[in-house]
Amino acid sequence: MFDIIILAIGKIRENYFAEAADEYIKRLKPYARVETIELGPVPFNNSNKNKAKKLEAEKILAYLEKHSDSRIFILHEEGKKINSRDFAGTVEGSGGRMIFVVGGSLGFDDSILEKSWQKLSLSPLTFPHEMARVILLEQIYRAATIIRGKEYHY
Amino acid sequence: MFDIIILAIGKIRENYFAEAADEYIKRLKPYARVETIELGPVPFNNSNKNKAKKLEAEKILAYLEKHSDSRIFILHEEGKKINSRDFAGTVEGSGGRMIFVVGGSLGFDDSILEKSWQKLSLSPLTFPHEMARVILLEQIYRAATIIRGKEYHY
Repeated sequence: MFDIIILAIGKIRENYFAEAADEYIKRLKPYARVETIELGPVPFNNSNKNKAKKLEAEKILAYLEKHSDSRIFILHEEGKKINSRDFAGTVEGSGGRMIFVVGGSLGFDDSILEKSWQKLSLSPLTFPHEMARVILLEQIYRAATIIRGKEYHY
Repeated sequence: MFDIIILAIGKIRENYFAEAADEYIKRLKPYARVETIELGPVPFNNSNKNKAKKLEAEKILAYLEKHSDSRIFILHEEGKKINSRDFAGTVEGSGGRMIFVVGGSLGFDDSILEKSWQKLSLSPLTFPHEMARVILLEQIYRAATIIRGKEYHY
C-alpha cells in the first residue's frame, strides 16, 4: 500500500479534470492511500506575479518542512525526463510517504526549485496545472498496475 | 485560420475526457477548423493483438493516402520531443492542412512508424489514447494563443 500526498496550489476548477482526477484516485484505492492537499493560490495581477509566486512558495515550504521525512518530488517541466516504467521504479523504490508537488498557474518560485528535492518532468510541454494533476494521477495508477503486474486496459 | 484534422482510432469513452476534448475544440473555433475523424478500432484479444494493430494501420494508411497533400504528424512517445513553443512554431510553419494521428490502445504498427511522416512526442510517458487526445488539443489551443500573442490564463 503506497502512501501518497498530492500537494497542489489551488483547486481543479474544470469539472471534467476534477472528475478525471477523482476517477484515478478511486482506481488507486486498492494500491495506495492518496491524499490531496490544496493550498490556496495567492491572487495576482500582471504587476505582482513574482510576489504571488513567492508567497505560494512560502506556503509550500511551510507544509514540506513539517513533512521532511517524506520523499518529495517537484513536478516541473525542466525536471528529470522519465518514461512510465522509470516512474513505476521510482514509486516502487520509495519507502514511506511520497509527496508530489504540483505548482499553480504561476509555476514554482526559485526558492522551491533550488532545493535538493527531485524534480520530475511529465513532459517538456507546458500543461495547465489542473491537467498536470490528472496526468500525474494517471501515471501513479499506471505505476501501481506495472508494479503489481496487472494488465492496464486503456 | 488553421485547418486541422485529428485522426484517431476509436472514440473517447470516458465522459470527462470527451468533455475536455470538446472544450478545447470549442476554444479553438476562433483560430482553427478542427475536424475529428474516428476510425473504428479492431477488436482484439491477447492472441491477436499484432494482427489487430496491423488492420488498424491499414485503415489509417488508406485515409492518409487520400490526404497525402496534408502535413502529417504521428503522435508517438518515441517521436521528437518538443516544448510548447516549438510545437507552436511547427503549427505556425505548416501551410495548409495538418493531420495529427493518434493511435488506439494498441499503439501503431510498424507499417505506420516506418513512413517518413514526422513523429512528435507529447511525453516519454505512456498515456491512455483518450488522454493523449485531450493533451494534443490543449497543446494546439496553447499553440494558437502563442501564435496570436494572446495571454492564455491557465
